[in-house]
Amino acid sequence: MRETDELVSRVKFNSDGLVPAIAQDAVTKNVLMLAWMNADTLAQTVTTGLATYWSRSRGEVWVKGATSGNTQTVTDILVDCDGDTLLLLVQPAGPACHTGSTTCFTV
Amino acid sequence: MRETDELVSRVKFNSDGLVPAIAQDAVTKNVLMLAWMNADTLAQTVTTGLATYWSRSRGEVWVKGATSGNTQTVTDILVDCDGDTLLLLVQPAGPACHTGSTTCFTV
Repeated sequence: MRETDELVSRVKFNSDGLVPAIAQDAVTKNVLMLAWMNADTLAQTVTTGLATYWSRSRGEVWVKGATSGNTQTVTDILVDCDGDTLLLLVQPAGPACHTGSTTCFTV
Repeated sequence: MRETDELVSRVKFNSDGLVPAIAQDAVTKNVLMLAWMNADTLAQTVTTGLATYWSRSRGEVWVKGATSGNTQTVTDILVDCDGDTLLLLVQPAGPACHTGSTTCFTV
């Protein structure tokens, strides 16, 4: 995992201080979900190794799987060419979707 | 490809009328890029079969590869569980990234 400060400095957060983060299964390469991070939850993700998002609907830090147990262990974080999107490679402990599906992209 | 109207109706566009669209290589499963669509470019994507985004920086319709030749032929479009993200499965004619890299997620 990269140095936290260096990583955060390369990200261009939007006017709300957020960046979209795509979670991809590191093994199956399935795209699991897209959620949002701010600088703090990105740093927390690096520090803890667990995908930690900013819930826009609840307005709070969202450690994925904190209640469901379906955590995502992050094995790498990539930043795209213009710095405004993250790609997280993760090892999921269970379904990504609140519906119980492996991915949130089912229909 | 799904019926255009039915597909568009299932998408929750943001306050700018946009939705993030993840492009994934249908064969390699590499995540290539994330760009944005509005209802018109989503419909145009379905109609033409070529990934067509809305360029936020240029404020115009962006047929991916129209100038570079690196088009993305769309084989499927999935909507996530809460309707606010698209996943496009594509067959790219060349690199996704303006840097010449296969994907925009290289660093």
